[in-house]
Order: sequence, then C-alpha cells, then structure tokens
Amino acid sequence: MKIDAIDFFYLAMPEILDIGDGSQDALLVRVRAGQFEGWGECEAAPLVSIASLVCPMSHSACKPVQASVLGQTIDSPADIRRIGNLVRANSLDLLQADHTLSGIDIALWDLLGRRYEQPVWKLLGYQQSYPKTPYASVLFGDTPELTLAKARAIRARGFRAAKFGWGPFGQGALAIDTAHLHAAREGLGAEGILLIDAGTVWNTDVAAARERLPALQEVGATWLEEPFVSGALREYQELSVASQPVGLAGGEGCHNFHMALHMIDHAGLTFVQIDAGRIGGITISKDVADYAALRGLTYVNHTFTSNLALSASIQPFAGLEDDEICEFPTELKALAVAMTRNHLTPNAQGQIAAPDAPGLGIDPDLEAIRPYLVETEIRVKGKVLYQTPAL
Amino acid sequence: MKIDAIDFFYLAMPEILDIGDGSQDALLVRVRAGQFEGWGECEAAPLVSIASLVCPMSHSACKPVQASVLGQTIDSPADIRRIGNLVRANSLDLLQADHTLSGIDIALWDLLGRRYEQPVWKLLGYQQSYPKTPYASVLFGDTPELTLAKARAIRARGFRAAKFGWGPFGQGALAIDTAHLHAAREGLGAEGILLIDAGTVWNTDVAAARERLPALQEVGATWLEEPFVSGALREYQELSVASQPVGLAGGEGCHNFHMALHMIDHAGLTFVQIDAGRIGGITISKDVADYAALRGLTYVNHTFTSNLALSASIQPFAGLEDDEICEFPTELKALAVAMTRNHLTPNAQGQIAAPDAPGLGIDPDLEAIRPYLVETEIRVKGKVLYQTPAL
Repeated sequence: MKIDAIDFFYLAMPEILDIGDGSQDALLVRVRAGQFEGWGECEAAPLVSIASLVCPMSHSACKPVQASVLGQTIDSPADIRRIGNLVRANSLDLLQADHTLSGIDIALWDLLGRRYEQPVWKLLGYQQSYPKTPYASVLFGDTPELTLAKARAIRARGFRAAKFGWGPFGQGALAIDTAHLHAAREGLGAEGILLIDAGTVWNTDVAAARERLPALQEVGATWLEEPFVSGALREYQELSVASQPVGLAGGEGCHNFHMALHMIDHAGLTFVQIDAGRIGGITISKDVADYAALRGLTYVNHTFTSNLALSASIQPFAGLEDDEICEFPTELKALAVAMTRNHLTPNAQGQIAAPDAPGLGIDPDLEAIRPYLVETEIRVKGKVLYQTPAL
Repeated sequence: MKIDAIDFFYLAMPEILDIGDGSQDALLVRVRAGQFEGWGECEAAPLVSIASLVCPMSHSACKPVQASVLGQTIDSPADIRRIGNLVRANSLDLLQADHTLSGIDIALWDLLGRRYEQPVWKLLGYQQSYPKTPYASVLFGDTPELTLAKARAIRARGFRAAKFGWGPFGQGALAIDTAHLHAAREGLGAEGILLIDAGTVWNTDVAAARERLPALQEVGATWLEEPFVSGALREYQELSVASQPVGLAGGEGCHNFHMALHMIDHAGLTFVQIDAGRIGGITISKDVADYAALRGLTYVNHTFTSNLALSASIQPFAGLEDDEICEFPTELKALAVAMTRNHLTPNAQGQIAAPDAPGLGIDPDLEAIRPYLVETEIRVKGKVLYQTPAL
C-alpha cells in the first residue's frame, strides 16, 4: 500500500486571543493510502507547517516534508519509522520539519490501526490501555479570586487533579504568585493533586524560580512545570536539588528524541512531558516513554488542543500502568470541541483511557469544522504550491 | 530609532539540484529603521521562514516573528539582544522562528554598524579582526579520481586547507571512502590541512563511524565533521575517545544557545561549528564563541552560502586570534556570487578577515539578484500576508 495523499487543513477560531490557550487553532492532517485514511494533528503555527510540507527544495538535505512521504509504502509500524527517518534526513536543515512530521506520523498510526482494526496502543506493543487520572488543565485566573473560583469549579466537576498555568503567574510580585497558589489549593481542597505550570516565565533565572519554592512546597504542589525554557539543563538541575518534594516537570519543547533524552538525563526532572504533535509523532513519543521508564521518570502527555491530539498523546504511554497522570485540557475553544465526533470523557471513577477502538478511536467531524476552515493559498513563481484542499 | 520594515527576498537558481550545496537558494533580509538599513540572510528553506515571519498568531506564545520586531527601538547592541529574547518568548512554539530570527539579527547588526560607522566585530567588543585561514569547502567528487582532481585544483588556487564532504562519502563500502580520503590527501599535498565532513551520514551509528577512523588517521585529517546528527551527544562522546588525533567537529545543527552549550559540554568536540544564519544570528553566535573559548574549544563558522552570510558568520570570532581556521565556500552557485557587490578574497598570505568597514562590510547587489527573485505570495482568508516586496 502506498501513500497517495497528505492533506493539511488549517482551522481557527474567528478571533485568536493573546492568551496561553493552544486550542484556538489547529492543523488537521489527513493521510490517504489505498482505501484507507488516517487523521493527525500538528501543534501550533499551521501556516508554517503547511509551508514546510510544500516548499521548494533548497538542497539535498532541505527538501519539503511531503517529498519523503508521498508514494512511500505503508504496511507496518516499521514503515512509519522508516518514513520518519527519511523526513529527518531529507529535511535536516528545515527546522519546522519535526512539527510537520508529527501530524503525519500520528495520521499514519491512525491509518494502520483502522486498516488492521487495532487500537494504536496495541500496534505499539501494549497489551492493555490503563486508565489515567486526568488533570484539568487551565490558565490561572487574572486575580487570585478568579483562580479560586476556577479551582472550585474544577473540583465541583469531579476532577481529582488540576494544573494552573501561564496568565499572571511569575509576571509580578512574589506575594501575588503566592496568593494564586493558595487560592488554587483552597479551591481544589486538601486532597486534590495540584500542578503548577510556569510556562518558561523565568527563562534561565534560577533565583527567580527558587523564590517561589517555599510557597509551592507550602501548598503541596506535586510539580512545577517549565520554570525555564526547554534545554536549560543546568538551570533545571540546579533548581531540582532545592525543589523537593515538589518535582520538576518539563519537556514539551523537545522536538526530537535527543532533546528529550537530554532532559531526562540532565535536567533533574521527575516528570517528562511530551507533545506527540511536536516531537515527531507517536513513534518518537513512544521511544521517550520507553527511555523514561528505564530511567525511572514518570511520562506525561502534553496536550492543549483537540481530543484527536489527546488520544494521540496518550497512546505512547497507554500501557504504562504506573504513569497514571494525564493532561486533559478543559477550557477548549469551540473549534477544538467541534473537531471530533466523539470525545474522551472521564468514567465514573473520574478516569480516562486511550480508546479500545481501531486507530486513535477518534473521528473528525468534517461538517462541524467546515466553518473554521482557514482558506490558504501559497504561490511560488506563479504556481500554486498549496491551496486548502476539499474536506 | 524604531524598526520600520522587515523585508524578506526569496532568491533561487533557476534549477535546484539534489546535491548538498546550500548556495542554490537564499533568503535575503532587509531591515529598515529611520534612514538606515541593514542586510542579513537566513539559512535554507526560504518559504518556511517567510511563513513564520507573517503567519497568524496561534496563541500568546506562538506569534509571527515580525510581531516582536516591527516598531521596536534599535539604538544599541542591547536592543538586538532584547528583540531576540522577545522573539524567542513570543514565538516559543513556532519551531522555525530561530532560523527566521537569525537573518533579522544579522541585518540589525549590519544596520547598527552602518549607523555608527563601525564594523560589527567592534560593536561586539573586539579590538581587532584577525586574519583567518580559509578552507576551501567543497563536495567530494563522485569518484576518487574526481576528488583527486578537485583537491589538486584547490591546491593550485593557493589554499592551505580544504574540506571535503557529502556526496558519496559514507554511502557505500569502506574501501571507497578510504580511496576518497587518500585521493583528497594526495591532491592537497602532505602539508595541506585536510578536513572531512560526513554530513550526519551515520545518524547515530558509532560502529559505522569508527570503521572510518583508521583511514582518517592515516591521511592525517584534522577533523571529522558531523559523523552524527546534532544532539547525539553520547555517540559523539563515544567516538571522540577513539578518534584522536582526528578531532571531532559539529554544531551547525544547533538552533539556540543551549544546544550549542550541550555540544560543547557533552560531545567531546574539538571544534564547534556555528551557523549564524540558524542559531539566532550574530548575537547567539558570539555567546557560543565566548563559551567555547572558556571551555578550550576552537570556534569555526559554518557557511555555505553568500559572502554576506560569510561576513556575518566570521564576526562572532573575528577577534579570537587563536581560532584561525574559517569555512570558505568555493563552489558557490552564480546566485551566491552575484548577491554581493564585494567579496571576501584571500590576501597575499592566503588569508581572509572580517572587513574593517561599517556593518558587515558587504553590499548586496540589487540589480544582479533581480533575475533570481522568486515571486512568492501567501494568502490567508483572502488577505495577502506576504508578497515579494520591491527590491
């Protein structure tokens, strides 16, 4: 079976707000081979990934991503890995390629799963899809009062865990951050798992991060996520020595296996967070999950978009029983909800799991997303290289 | 002074060949502020960097690069660093952004240099621009005989050093690689500095790379460049233990300071090679040069395009007297030659130096490049986000 078509669909809310909410747009990927199709999603900056799919070649190691995918044989997981290796070699000097490949890799796993009527996690070698404890992933409120209200609402919805991030956190005085942390804990209750996401706000400033540790320890946060930019290994390591029992979490910025390996080996992390839509898809995410298990770190998905991306991001660690915490975005914009016909919803025990259904087990809702389609056209030398394809 | 305009010009040869020659296209950058302008260049995949300059925002940490540059104050080197930090924060989730920023950063240094009538290397704090020994940077011939002919021609042109890379090397039998290595040494003469670039051909396969070490040692190669992909720290480290006296060289794939730091600290490199057109411009390249000096590594530029890019890539280590070897592409396509009115040519001693002239000391030749201009248009929701600007 050969890959006949790769189609990218740029979707967006009518208005994009200047807030840390990644569900405001999406790049939906459809791959077709023979009579089968699969769906995937690339994280962030749809136009740039579209350009990297179709751009003219610069030289032998800087080809458009589609050059390494179209026409390739796709019969087994080994083919997916081979195609990924081709993309990385042929698009070595095309920085965006890892993000672009990610959505394609996800769609290829979905396609194979639909073809063989197996869930992706089974194709990955897992025997079982263990239930995960989802944490409601939300932005901090603009004030501690609003954070308190958000936390109470999350608890009322039955969540046992919540992550607060971005917004005002780390932007102002220590006292304001401390008030937000206490508000989150109060609203969530003493038993709730409280996670804090600094969104790289301190860049590489260890002292600024360290100032927040007493409050984080006081409210019993389970982790502090991304105090620094991805790759600031020394700074992570230095902070990790002082942060316990608050563990450090990070890794979403990794766009290849090596970067994740460095974070696991050298950053003093307790939790490694991988976005399948960025790191090169499900294939590389699973490699990282295997390596994290070997090194005793907990693997966690990073997901801030649709339930298609959510299912894709859970597959790589679906079979790891002990890695049970799972990011679950709960403030999705209408687009991200509309994108799929079915959704991963917590069961009676408040847990979610990668579906026991062919592929990713998530069906895109083509009618519902039509209004969000962003008509896009790229012309080079008078030739149309990309035009929004028919849904 | 405020930044009024950023213009990207996509240039390309009429035909792009599937060979490891990066001079076949270019993304020329013009920045204007008040009555001044500066010029820069981004490495590879022009269309993708154009898209990242103008793309719609995805969320607060995924904005188009121009959002962090247009309208910014530009009066001093500190402003350039501030703008770079803004881009990295506001385009955190836009992978291509580092490559895009690189050309802008270079153009901003050129602009400041022209405004203050100072060479960039002086603005960087150097007192002197030391002469460098250029190595002719060429592809291996398709056969050992062609490699021999190339090496002889390089020697006849007066070069004391040459680098052979890509082409057939590492693609076939060990005996063929060995024949190429001996041919290169024979053509260059016993005294010539011989450098070998494997172009990541072994990905992470240490055994395959190790097989070539005896021949590399026999021909007295000074370095083996990129046996593995950037970031394969352990594999580099493992090979470095066995490679001496052949030093390892690498780093061109780094697109931020942290990645270069990891290569310097953990890859067992003797030479760290930085492409100012990828790593974030002259600013970050200079940071790496400082750090390499501290750690006792030799800094080398990575350059495979025009003399504008060459001058930009020499500035960061222009004042480091001991780091005297310098990449000098000698098989430039007509476009890369035509791009600039003046060129860096070896003096009577066969050496080149960053110009003692305002800015980068290189003037683009707007008339000569006009035929290479690739008309490009990007439309989103019926609105033109990018159209090739007037030269």
